[in-house]
Amino acid sequence: MTRRRKIYEGKAKILYEGPEPGTLIQYFKDDATAFNAQKKGTISGKGVINNRVSEHVFTRLSHIGIPTHFIRRLNMREQLIRQVEIVPIEVIVRNVAAGTLSKRLGIEEGTPLPHTLLEYCYKDDSLGDPLVAEEHIACFGWASQEEMQDISSMAIRINDFMCGMFAAIGIRLIDFKLEFGRLFDGDFSRIILADEISPDGCRLWDIETGEKLDKDRFRRDLGGEAEAYQEVARRLGLMPDESEGAVLDMVSHRLRKGK
Amino acid sequence: MTRRRKIYEGKAKILYEGPEPGTLIQYFKDDATAFNAQKKGTISGKGVINNRVSEHVFTRLSHIGIPTHFIRRLNMREQLIRQVEIVPIEVIVRNVAAGTLSKRLGIEEGTPLPHTLLEYCYKDDSLGDPLVAEEHIACFGWASQEEMQDISSMAIRINDFMCGMFAAIGIRLIDFKLEFGRLFDGDFSRIILADEISPDGCRLWDIETGEKLDKDRFRRDLGGEAEAYQEVARRLGLMPDESEGAVLDMVSHRLRKGK
Repeated sequence: MTRRRKIYEGKAKILYEGPEPGTLIQYFKDDATAFNAQKKGTISGKGVINNRVSEHVFTRLSHIGIPTHFIRRLNMREQLIRQVEIVPIEVIVRNVAAGTLSKRLGIEEGTPLPHTLLEYCYKDDSLGDPLVAEEHIACFGWASQEEMQDISSMAIRINDFMCGMFAAIGIRLIDFKLEFGRLFDGDFSRIILADEISPDGCRLWDIETGEKLDKDRFRRDLGGEAEAYQEVARRLGLMPDESEGAVLDMVSHRLRKGK
Repeated sequence: MTRRRKIYEGKAKILYEGPEPGTLIQYFKDDATAFNAQKKGTISGKGVINNRVSEHVFTRLSHIGIPTHFIRRLNMREQLIRQVEIVPIEVIVRNVAAGTLSKRLGIEEGTPLPHTLLEYCYKDDSLGDPLVAEEHIACFGWASQEEMQDISSMAIRINDFMCGMFAAIGIRLIDFKLEFGRLFDGDFSRIILADEISPDGCRLWDIETGEKLDKDRFRRDLGGEAEAYQEVARRLGLMPDESEGAVLDMVSHRLRKGK
């Protein structure tokens, strides 16, 4: 298991060569970073939860016709995915002003946006993932206009679905990040949803209390990150799968803390 | 003359009430600022040259059918313009990578862009005129989609015209800034070109030597700002109009320097 070839290691995930051509294994770490990795830490059990939440959301999205890279979950921290060529654009879907949007445009955090806003950032850590416009994407050929059309229409559908899914469990979907990839079939390619959807890349506020149930707890030193991630998983009906055998990181974490 | 009502004072210009309703007087100062007014200074005679260059360019643009706010030049530092409601978007037209684009996206200055790139910045000094996408403009209603269509198609035509005009006098048009306004006619409005076009808002490089003939001389402490602005005016055939009576600021500046 440890001898397999590592394809890529990111801030929160590792990609390994998969069992068949065209597949990869996506491993979820507990490492957490913020502010373009200037802040680093660990959220105990995060990888286990994100693997499970992302499986859940991607599976549900495929049911409404969104093509994704997800094939199946392999174990607590790994899932089998289709190998794609990642489009170097992060898509930020925003329903309510928060984070960099609030700062950049001077809009108070928590202000509902007049309508859903799609933002694009060029994926380049050394540049700090700068905001770009569709004009930049077209100018530098990062994605074709047809691809951007597919990406933006999928992003809007995914947002609608996720707003409903989270509203049903008392969570307000403030904003979230998506990544897409090109799945090749000979010379042709089509755009499918890639990466993950989890509390790492979403802002999720409790509808009643406004409490943050996402990575902002880590970014802003609010504490209770692990518990917030668990709460999201719990409300989604994703209780820890103890049949896996291993002692769960979260449980061991709780035990260590004497809870 | 000094009793007229000041409508607005910006970093490089002052707007006064005009002689008739719907008109304003645009006064060009020698004040120069850079980096969102963190750097301040004066370029002697700049206002005189910018008034003259902007008159020249706006007049030429009107000949190819671009509607502008320019009515006529009144004197060395003033021109009569139509009163418009400024669209709060700065349009940056880029042919070659330079300045903030180079820095933001890590593209070496002087790299020709694959094609002309339009960028939009939200006009708000307190926020540092942040880059925005058409999505933000639509979301916050800063301009309608029809208006943005007019703005982008005018910007492209203006760029084509100006590339030709400057190429003819040995100058490479790297990038430039445009502002547009709404001219009201009852309840209706149409978009016209506003503000100014001058070496303050353009990057102009000598085609042969690459020498900068624009405000970057001031931004980057290269010296010779006044001379660079004069050189642009001279190549455009806009020699100082001595019939105005007053001793020209630039001449007096040269005399002070003993040239």
